[in-house]
Amino acid sequence: MLGWGGAGLALGAAVAGGAVAAATAGEDRTAPAAASGAAVPFHGAHQAGIATAVQDRLHFASFDVKTRDRAELVRLLQDWTRAAEQMTAGDTVGEGAYGGLAEAPPDDTGEALGLKPSRLTLTVGFGPSLFDARFGLGDRRPAALVELPKFAGDNLDPARSGGDLCVQACADDPQVAVHAIRQLARIGFGKVAVRWSQLGFGKTSSTTPEAQTPRNLMGFKDGTRNIAGTDTAALGKHVWVSRKDGPAWLVGGSYLVARRIRMNIETWDRTSLKEQEDIFGRDKGEGAPVGRARERDEPFLPAMLPTAHVRLAHPDSNGGARMLRRGFSFTDGTDGLGRLDAGLFFLAYQRDVAHGFVPVQRSLASDDLNEYIQHVGSALYAIPPGVRDKDDWWGRALFS
Amino acid sequence: MLGWGGAGLALGAAVAGGAVAAATAGEDRTAPAAASGAAVPFHGAHQAGIATAVQDRLHFASFDVKTRDRAELVRLLQDWTRAAEQMTAGDTVGEGAYGGLAEAPPDDTGEALGLKPSRLTLTVGFGPSLFDARFGLGDRRPAALVELPKFAGDNLDPARSGGDLCVQACADDPQVAVHAIRQLARIGFGKVAVRWSQLGFGKTSSTTPEAQTPRNLMGFKDGTRNIAGTDTAALGKHVWVSRKDGPAWLVGGSYLVARRIRMNIETWDRTSLKEQEDIFGRDKGEGAPVGRARERDEPFLPAMLPTAHVRLAHPDSNGGARMLRRGFSFTDGTDGLGRLDAGLFFLAYQRDVAHGFVPVQRSLASDDLNEYIQHVGSALYAIPPGVRDKDDWWGRALFS
Repeated sequence: MLGWGGAGLALGAAVAGGAVAAATAGEDRTAPAAASGAAVPFHGAHQAGIATAVQDRLHFASFDVKTRDRAELVRLLQDWTRAAEQMTAGDTVGEGAYGGLAEAPPDDTGEALGLKPSRLTLTVGFGPSLFDARFGLGDRRPAALVELPKFAGDNLDPARSGGDLCVQACADDPQVAVHAIRQLARIGFGKVAVRWSQLGFGKTSSTTPEAQTPRNLMGFKDGTRNIAGTDTAALGKHVWVSRKDGPAWLVGGSYLVARRIRMNIETWDRTSLKEQEDIFGRDKGEGAPVGRARERDEPFLPAMLPTAHVRLAHPDSNGGARMLRRGFSFTDGTDGLGRLDAGLFFLAYQRDVAHGFVPVQRSLASDDLNEYIQHVGSALYAIPPGVRDKDDWWGRALFS
Repeated sequence: MLGWGGAGLALGAAVAGGAVAAATAGEDRTAPAAASGAAVPFHGAHQAGIATAVQDRLHFASFDVKTRDRAELVRLLQDWTRAAEQMTAGDTVGEGAYGGLAEAPPDDTGEALGLKPSRLTLTVGFGPSLFDARFGLGDRRPAALVELPKFAGDNLDPARSGGDLCVQACADDPQVAVHAIRQLARIGFGKVAVRWSQLGFGKTSSTTPEAQTPRNLMGFKDGTRNIAGTDTAALGKHVWVSRKDGPAWLVGGSYLVARRIRMNIETWDRTSLKEQEDIFGRDKGEGAPVGRARERDEPFLPAMLPTAHVRLAHPDSNGGARMLRRGFSFTDGTDGLGRLDAGLFFLAYQRDVAHGFVPVQRSLASDDLNEYIQHVGSALYAIPPGVRDKDDWWGRALFS
C-alpha cells in the first residue's frame, strides 16, 4: 500500500507540473512523462499523441482500406473514434470482454482488463492513396500530400511502406498499445486490413526538455533539440497546419513522416569511439556538441566535420526546418544472417513536408552515418485535427 | 523531486517485503515485483531469473557456437559471466561506452547509460547439441537432456528452434534487456552467433501470487496456480535438480522448455464468450474455475468439459506434474496475410522434463485450444546452477 501511496504522491506532482505547462501552452496533454498510469484526454483541438509527452512504448499500424463503400468507411471512422474514446479513458470497447451475450464474441478481447490507461494515445492519419478515385476524395487531397521523393540510399520494402490509413498507438504499457491496435483492426474486419505494423520499445526523442534525453541503439542521445510539447510558438510554426496552409479540413492537423531505419548494429559496434563521435558531432557520454561542454549547449557548426550528423540535420543547414520527432527504437528479432534486425522507427510531425523532412533528408545524403543505417520503410500521412467532442469523429471535416 | 521521494518509499517497502521472503525461502531474489529499478543479486546457489519475481520484459536469444576450440568457449563463458555481473548491477561492460581509448570501439554500446538496473537478470542454458562431439562433453550430457518428442499439432520452424546456448534476459525496462543480449552477442563475435531471438513485451505468468495475475493475448488470466518464487518446498520438488537426479554439475540447476506459440488471434476474437470460457475452463472476467466463484478457488475438474484447458493441464491430470512458468506475450508485427504475428513465448522451468512438460503437453493434445494456437518454435536447455562468487563462472562445473 505504501508503494501506491508513493505513486499517488508522484502523480500529484506530475499533475501539478502539467497544470503549469497547460497554463502556458493552452493544452492539457503536455504533462511531463509520469509512470502514473493516468489517462490522456482524447478530445481537443489537436490529436493527442503529437505534443503529448512521449510515452515509453509504440504500436504503429498502417491499414489498406478494403471496402469501396464511402459510407462504410465513414462508419468505420466513427466506430474507431468511439472505441478510442473508451480505450484512452482506460475502459474496454463496447460491452467489454465479458459483458454482452455469452453466445456472441465479446466486444473487447480482454487482455487490457485490470491495466491502467497508461497514457494511451491513438493518433489517426490519412495516406496519399486514400485520395485516389475510390472515395471521391481526389479534390480534397492537400497539395503537400504527395509521395516522398526517392532519397539517396533508400532501400524501401513496399510491404513496409505506404498505406491508406495509419494509427499510432503510444502508451507507457506495451500491452495497452497492442490491445488498442488489435481492437481497431478487429472493428475494421472486412473493411480494412493491416498492411504493416511496427512495435517500438524505447522512445528515442523526448518532447519534454526537462527529462533525461533518451539514447538510440547507437548509444547516443537523440532528440536533444527536439520541439517541446509545451512550446506553443514552435508548435504553431513547425507542427500544426494553419488556415493559411490549408486545406480547411486539415487546419489544426499536421503531416507525419514514418521511416523504418535499420541500423547495422554489428558494424557500428566495431567502430572506434572517436569515429562514432565524429559522425554524430557529439560526444557519447554527455552528448555535448563538438567543442562544447554540455548536452544542451548551442552547437557551433563550423567546429564540426562538414559531414557530422548534428551539422547536417541542424535547422541552420536546412533553411530553419524543424520537426517534432517521436521515434522509437525497435528490435524485431534476428535476420537470416544472425544479425539483430534493429534500428529506429523514425516518426516526425511537421506543418510542411517540403520545408521539413524533405530538405533535411536531402541534406543527410552526405552523412557518414549512412554507412551504418538504411531506410527500409517509408510512409507519409496527413494527420487530421483533434476530435472536438462526443459528436465529432476522426476525419469528419474531410468527409463532410 | 516528490516523485522520486515516492519511489524511494515504495522501494523501501519492497525491500522490507523481500527481506521477509528471504528469511522464509533462504533466497534473496524473490522480492515482490517493484517498479523500483533496483538490482537483483547475480550471485547465488541458483541462477537469477527463475524464482525471481517475473519482470515486465524479455529478450531471449539462442546461440550456435561457431568455434571448435573448447578453451575459447570456456573463455567466452567466463567473459559473459563478468559482463553479466556488471550489467545486472547497472554498470556498463568493461571500460564502458566512453572510457577506454578513443581509437578503439567502446567496450559497451551505451544505450543503457543512465538507465536503472531495472531488475535485470541473465540466465544461461546449454542445449542438447552442445554435448555433441565438438567439445568433448558427450559423457557429461544429462540423460534427461534429449530433444523433445514431436507433439500433436507441432509445426516447428527449425530457424526458431534449438541452439547450443541460450540467454534469457528479463528486466522491467526493455532497453536494458535488449542492451544486455547485444553486449553478450558482441563479446561472442566470431565464437557464437545468434540463431534466433525473441522479444516478449508482457509477462503472462506471475511467480508472486499476491500480485494481480497477468492476462495472455486471448484475454484470459494465465498462471493463476503457478509455482511461487518464495515456495521453497515446491521449488525443491518441481524446479531444482537435486543430487539424486544428477549429474553433479547440474545440481541446483533446472531444465528450461521454450516454445513459441502462435495464436490465431483473429479467429479467437470471433469466438463466442461461452466457447472461450468452455475452452479454458475459467470465466474470462474473474478467472474463476468452472462452478467456482474466485480465481484462486481450487478447480473441481469433473465439473469441466473433458477437453477444458485447466483440466488437461492440472497436476491431477498429469501425475502431479508442475512447472514454474515464466512466459511472455509477443507481437512480431504482421504476417503476409495482414494477421498479427502474436502469441505466447512459453518458458517453463522444471526439475525433470519427462515428468513436467512432456506429459502435460501430451495431455493437451485433446485441448480444444489447439484450434486457435500452433507451436512454431521449440527448444530445451539444461540450466546450470548459480554463479557462486566472483571466481565462479557460468558452466564451470560442466567444463571442469
